Amino acid sequence: MKFLFEEMNFSTSNRTELIDITDKVERFVSDSDIKNGICLVSTLHSTTAVIVNENERGLMNDILRKIDEEFPKNAGWSHDRIDSNADAHLASTFIGPSRTLPIKDGRLLRGTWQNIFLLELDGPRNRRIFVEVLGE
Amino acid sequence: MKFLFEEMNFSTSNRTELIDITDKVERFVSDSDIKNGICLVSTLHSTTAVIVNENERGLMNDILRKIDEEFPKNAGWSHDRIDSNADAHLASTFIGPSRTLPIKDGRLLRGTWQNIFLLELDGPRNRRIFVEVLGE
Amino acid sequence: MKFLFEEMNFSTSNRTELIDITDKVERFVSDSDIKNGICLVSTLHSTTAVIVNENERGLMNDILRKIDEEFPKNAGWSHDRIDSNADAHLASTFIGPSRTLPIKDGRLLRGTWQNIFLLELDGPRNRRIFVEVLGE
Repeated sequence: MKFLFEEMNFSTSNRTELIDITDKVERFVSDSDIKNGICLVSTLHSTTAVIVNENERGLMNDILRKIDEEFPKNAGWSHDRIDSNADAHLASTFIGPSRTLPIKDGRLLRGTWQNIFLLELDGPRNRRIFVEVLGE
Repeated sequence: MKFLFEEMNFSTSNRTELIDITDKVERFVSDSDIKNGICLVSTLHSTTAVIVNENERGLMNDILRKIDEEFPKNAGWSHDRIDSNADAHLASTFIGPSRTLPIKDGRLLRGTWQNIFLLELDGPRNRRIFVEVLGE
Repeated sequence: MKFLFEEMNFSTSNRTELIDITDKVERFVSDSDIKNGICLVSTLHSTTAVIVNENERGLMNDILRKIDEEFPKNAGWSHDRIDSNADAHLASTFIGPSRTLPIKDGRLLRGTWQNIFLLELDGPRNRRIFVEVLGE
């Protein structure tokens, strides 16, 4: 049984942004030589999230637009008196800090249109993702 | 340590729909002879999701109504220029592609009112769910 | 390989409420003597959820306000004819019943502003959380 971790670092450029991390995660899974197990992709920031969906430029814009509409900035949130980023915390809370994917036959089990993204909600900043793979 | 996978196939009948997969998942857990571990229920489609809640017809209608209100079709999404199903991708992105449940004493650890559903968001289609159980 | 479970019990005081369970979860991880693995924090109730974000009083109020706005009570939900808590089921369905965190070097891998909360959506009630740690 193996438990392997990798920290991945990213610099974001905008307040909200999607960074496709699929290739990095798949390389880590491949290098781990784990045949069967799971892969847990986590952010350690409370103003980012991890999502899984299609890497299509229009859809990526739609996701950011939806976040903007659903979690509006400066909507009288109490937390804004401290840090003016309550909207980012709220989106992170509802979407969640991680996604878990199966590993089967040495590969990440994902659909053709399922890419893994770091979702920046309060950038630009330097961000860290932790990927854990466990299995045999 | 065991890692077992099962692919489950479903044909959906409507654009949005909930299919209760609890019995199938529980049978797989039971057949696995795993005493303690976890069960990861994943969809490989970016226009479906996996959810956990009560199997009550009224509530199931409420969930589909809420999705319709929250992720309206044809709301000027960019992705609709390519595939006219941006609403389905968005719902899948926010809700998530999987749910993880504990396995304890040979049984799925879930509440009385916690059933597991495949959530179709862009049907009718043929859909695949992957269930992974790992444990001892 | 170890698989350890702990049931945690809570009495909530309001209809919606956030209870910080981070200390209890961390103590369990620490007592488990697991060096590397994962920690699955699950609710077995379909009208609660588990979330991860900052323990700041203003933000906690914002989260409850957002739930109130997003999942309004008595909005003509079908399930209300049976149990008058459809709004709580809906929030639980969308947010999810569990969160999974990595365990590395004997510690829960979480950010400075990432606390773990039980989210009560239909209190006051007695509630149970199951924490599972698995690893070596």
